[in-house]
Amino acid sequence: VAIHTISPHSPIGIFDSGVGGLTVLRTIKAMLPNEHLIYFGDTARVPYGTKSEPTVRKYAIEDAKLLLRYAPKLIVVACNTVSALALDSVQETAKGIGVLGVIKAGAKCALEKSADKRIGVIGTQATISSYAYQRELHQLSKDVQVFAKACPLFVPLAEEGFAQHEATKLIAKEYLAELLDSRIDTLILGCTHYPLLKSTIQEVVGETVVLIDSAEAVAQDVKTHLSQQELLSFDSPKPPRVLVSDMPQRFQSIAERFLGFRLHHLELVSLDDLSAYADS
Amino acid sequence: VAIHTISPHSPIGIFDSGVGGLTVLRTIKAMLPNEHLIYFGDTARVPYGTKSEPTVRKYAIEDAKLLLRYAPKLIVVACNTVSALALDSVQETAKGIGVLGVIKAGAKCALEKSADKRIGVIGTQATISSYAYQRELHQLSKDVQVFAKACPLFVPLAEEGFAQHEATKLIAKEYLAELLDSRIDTLILGCTHYPLLKSTIQEVVGETVVLIDSAEAVAQDVKTHLSQQELLSFDSPKPPRVLVSDMPQRFQSIAERFLGFRLHHLELVSLDDLSAYADS
Repeated sequence: VAIHTISPHSPIGIFDSGVGGLTVLRTIKAMLPNEHLIYFGDTARVPYGTKSEPTVRKYAIEDAKLLLRYAPKLIVVACNTVSALALDSVQETAKGIGVLGVIKAGAKCALEKSADKRIGVIGTQATISSYAYQRELHQLSKDVQVFAKACPLFVPLAEEGFAQHEATKLIAKEYLAELLDSRIDTLILGCTHYPLLKSTIQEVVGETVVLIDSAEAVAQDVKTHLSQQELLSFDSPKPPRVLVSDMPQRFQSIAERFLGFRLHHLELVSLDDLSAYADS
Repeated sequence: VAIHTISPHSPIGIFDSGVGGLTVLRTIKAMLPNEHLIYFGDTARVPYGTKSEPTVRKYAIEDAKLLLRYAPKLIVVACNTVSALALDSVQETAKGIGVLGVIKAGAKCALEKSADKRIGVIGTQATISSYAYQRELHQLSKDVQVFAKACPLFVPLAEEGFAQHEATKLIAKEYLAELLDSRIDTLILGCTHYPLLKSTIQEVVGETVVLIDSAEAVAQDVKTHLSQQELLSFDSPKPPRVLVSDMPQRFQSIAERFLGFRLHHLELVSLDDLSAYADS
């Protein structure tokens, strides 16, 4: 039983540990301009990718409860770490409202593109250690070979605007060497920040390796899900609502790097409110 | 009026946003082996250096209240960001218990070492933007010239073990170029993580520039304060107690990189407890 009434006019809720998920918001907005989007970024507690499973689970439930206040027709978990460690907790919290994560979407998309079924996955320490991509890929295909590597420095390098820097290339070469040795033909960018490093990563792995952007994959999943459920909106477009739990200096400029356009409207949610939602 | 009775036997409480402050714990332990030390690292919400002042203040008050439960004779704020943005909040919370931050200690030490009074400061975005070091240095000396630069990538590079990496040298060269152009003779490492990058930073700035480690400076301050207050301990040494709000995978190995020795005893504090302390 759904906890609120949903219709095509209901918004889509999207959440992430911080600003990285704005790449998902951007891609959904481009693919489905008539949808009303509400985004929450937990900037007061970012990053999740270096934290433990119990902590990620607790934060994910609070994030989902916050979005449920806006009566969404669908919740998109833009955060790879939450999708890997706590998607079931989000589903339980959402009680009947659809929940889509980036992991399944990315895994499906990679299998469609890979000829040799030798697939690489990169992500945060938490995502890679969870084996979520590895499990998902093996569930979808019996003969796939998966090679995974945590690339923890990619997040700060992307946030600090070092995406094309020589230092980033050196670090990428080191991180990706073993995946190249394993002759992958497809590489899943298993973190919302990594699309910003796409050109550097492509240069290091070479043109023959197909890069899978999980933002694009999940946007496709959203479209399919809404169309199957007859929940696609045909309302006139309006700007997305963006909520954050902290608004540090320079936030606006970092957010715009991910979003690709200027944010006119930002709303601050207090952490105490977040905890209060968790108790309700 | 102190909120609890203190004596030379009382512990010293030390807190930080995460593991970085273990360099402060290590230095105090080496200088004052008879002191009983209790450390809290807020690993569930680390880092503070990219967050806003209201959020840092809220976290700092919760951290201080947690330590006050252990009836310390002194609270050491190992975190540069908290020392810069919220030392007054910690002092108010401590109600008469001494509070020492790393900023004043580092500033004093730099002025003692600098011949030309041309001092550089590096730290997190929040520390540098707060002008706390700049203000402190100008209060202590009328004719000092201060040149500051935020180096946000140094924290993740240190945590990921890239301290001596070629990529780190490239990034350090870029970050430190303008400080070198300003002909500084002394450089304050205004972040607990930076001592791990000491050799790389020294290589980039050259042997003539004196590096100031704020961990050493604050340990000296602790000794002076306790001796003035007749609060030095002569008890037999015991291992420090280390409390954290999250214990991710690999935490032990990262902590040991900062601490220099193996941690046998780690205690987990729940975030809900932290918020409860804040209400009390």
